[in-house]
Amino acid sequence: MTEASPGRLSEEQLVDWLRLIRSENVGPRTFRQLINRFGGAGAALDALPSLAARSLRGRTIRIATREEALREIEAARALGVRFATTGDPDYPPLLREIADAPPLIAMRGVSWTAQRDGVAIVGSRNASAAGLAFAERLARSLALENYVIVSGLARGIDAVAHRATLETGTIAVLAGGHARPYPAEHARLVEEIAERGLIVSEMPIEWEPRGRDFPRRNRIISGLSRATIVVEAARRSGSLITARFANEQGREVFAVPGSPLDPRAEGVNDLIRQGATLCARPEDVISVLAENAGSPPRKNLFDDDSLEGQDTLIDELDLFAGLDGSAFEERAAPKQFSPPSPPADCVADLDAHTRGEESPQRDAHEVILSLLGPAPIAIDDLIRVAGLTAREVQGVLVELDIEGRLQRHGANSVSLILNYKL
Amino acid sequence: MTEASPGRLSEEQLVDWLRLIRSENVGPRTFRQLINRFGGAGAALDALPSLAARSLRGRTIRIATREEALREIEAARALGVRFATTGDPDYPPLLREIADAPPLIAMRGVSWTAQRDGVAIVGSRNASAAGLAFAERLARSLALENYVIVSGLARGIDAVAHRATLETGTIAVLAGGHARPYPAEHARLVEEIAERGLIVSEMPIEWEPRGRDFPRRNRIISGLSRATIVVEAARRSGSLITARFANEQGREVFAVPGSPLDPRAEGVNDLIRQGATLCARPEDVISVLAENAGSPPRKNLFDDDSLEGQDTLIDELDLFAGLDGSAFEERAAPKQFSPPSPPADCVADLDAHTRGEESPQRDAHEVILSLLGPAPIAIDDLIRVAGLTAREVQGVLVELDIEGRLQRHGANSVSLILNYKL
Repeated sequence: MTEASPGRLSEEQLVDWLRLIRSENVGPRTFRQLINRFGGAGAALDALPSLAARSLRGRTIRIATREEALREIEAARALGVRFATTGDPDYPPLLREIADAPPLIAMRGVSWTAQRDGVAIVGSRNASAAGLAFAERLARSLALENYVIVSGLARGIDAVAHRATLETGTIAVLAGGHARPYPAEHARLVEEIAERGLIVSEMPIEWEPRGRDFPRRNRIISGLSRATIVVEAARRSGSLITARFANEQGREVFAVPGSPLDPRAEGVNDLIRQGATLCARPEDVISVLAENAGSPPRKNLFDDDSLEGQDTLIDELDLFAGLDGSAFEERAAPKQFSPPSPPADCVADLDAHTRGEESPQRDAHEVILSLLGPAPIAIDDLIRVAGLTAREVQGVLVELDIEGRLQRHGANSVSLILNYKL
Repeated sequence: MTEASPGRLSEEQLVDWLRLIRSENVGPRTFRQLINRFGGAGAALDALPSLAARSLRGRTIRIATREEALREIEAARALGVRFATTGDPDYPPLLREIADAPPLIAMRGVSWTAQRDGVAIVGSRNASAAGLAFAERLARSLALENYVIVSGLARGIDAVAHRATLETGTIAVLAGGHARPYPAEHARLVEEIAERGLIVSEMPIEWEPRGRDFPRRNRIISGLSRATIVVEAARRSGSLITARFANEQGREVFAVPGSPLDPRAEGVNDLIRQGATLCARPEDVISVLAENAGSPPRKNLFDDDSLEGQDTLIDELDLFAGLDGSAFEERAAPKQFSPPSPPADCVADLDAHTRGEESPQRDAHEVILSLLGPAPIAIDDLIRVAGLTAREVQGVLVELDIEGRLQRHGANSVSLILNYKL
């Protein structure tokens, strides 16, 4: 029986693998245990109904049909998406190492990209111009060291990290399926990444991402990466979940510090306080990775109660997680599956999505305000990241000047004076 | 003989103490050793000429005269300045604990202020608005916890910290004498501090501060404080010296992080990378101090090569530092006193005073360079094999430090950084 470590699957084997992983309550851990117990996906599918009936005291679980699997394979082909299992030579080697490696991933683009070591750069969607500029510099410098930049396709830091490395190699991990990249405004970026980089998803091709899919997705971002760098993050940002996964996976965690008066720095400063390595220049990352090349995973950084309310959500993926011969029968059926609350960041992300995006042309004043922080930023960079004309930006800066909210540093650099009160 | 722990000194004893500490080449360590060896300042003064003659191979040192001491006492009285020795009940208890505690300090203001625990807040002179705002918030919050805020009267962070705590208790430590507060523009601030807080100086009343007096002064700032917080600091800022002293004194070191794109954050981010505790809110400091109240001094934070080029300069204060009965006679005489280069920050501060103080010690520099290599060597050994004085060697090491060519391994051992390019 070669199915448990299958190399490339036959079409029939792929159908079975897809049916099994797409079945209700079967997550990565359950999948692996079922394969180990029954010797293959086909046998596991045969056994699943009675297994579930016993375990769930009569309630049945939905098992994906052969037709559904074939439809997904068809849809994947139409999009140029290929599947890879953990046994496939195309499967990303770093991702294969993690505890909850997806048994099956769908990849679009240059799959060779994921054979190289990744470094994840993640952070705020509403990042400051300084944060965006730093993320860009970081991404470019790491690309020069031959690292692939991994991120989550979100607005802000993620998008800048991808865009800076379109030519050198970047991987975007989706929270939904390949037919539903999120956010919609990055449809064109997705195409650009697919041309020379890679898009990865473990979800069904047509899956519309929900809030709770984002934290789950984040383990793949960190899993593809030897290090995760958080550039700007408010206190409950989803980026902190990626950092936590990275740490649990024995990967390096870096955080870029910021002024305590900037709320966008609260999460990263917390990370540093908890033991993440401070990253103030690309060399901070490069030297640590060079030092640790080939060494065993590092020890756990975080205290038990760090990142409160942001515990890893992976246990929730699997109804049967941790099951073994004896424990399986004893496990009580959940009366009702109650998904953990997604972190505020994801909700905010999806709220915008479900409410319909804000008008794409936000007020220039607002755009500039959101980009400015206490750290000085070159006006040229501000113009570039704002996507506004020099005239528009200068106009807003003059307004801010008049309002007493702008600090000028020489001729070409500005920062925001924070309205701070004791 | 009670003079060695004198309580309040008689006027005659004060004259002797002043004469001894104001004599050439007598710093805090030498002072203490002379007192211990001869039983009192008067006896030490009697012995000093022959002691120096033997040690310095005929060169004499200038011993302060009785008239000078009386004049200083007079000048102090006119300014409302009182002297306190380490044995005096008015002497600040935290300062008394440090290795290089000044034997005699001159205080102006409410001396009771220094009986309370201090927290030092130091940082850039050209601080950002955010940095100033944060320093102010920090100072006020710590004042609410009954801490006295200690700083160095400089423009920027120092001045904000003092001003925020004029009502609740603040201590300014001068690099020069009480008649020469620096910078001159803070003359009025000095008066305000003297009203309800305290001004402290170890220097002669009329002493005009030079560049190298600032690092020396900084040990008193940290020494008066249970913790030192650096708010903004460029890479070679004098504030980092205060942090280093704090660490050597077993006190807590905090640094307020900033954006990597802000040069004013380079020094503080470095401190955090080296192990200083990140401070993003007053509670970060308050909780650590509450936890550690009464516990033994913490371990050394910094790596050997931390704060390159900013090693403590206190060894330079004392010609006879580390002297004991046997070593004293064997010690070679210095040919010429070569002051260590002050850190860049101090130079900027005092460029008017220090310019033209070029070191003529080229040969010592070359000797040391030829003796140093990539393998660490004990400074004591270096002194011995170089055939130079401790002072000469330390002077050269500081120069190499500042040139970025020296690596420090713990307090007592150094190596040369190779492949050094300018």
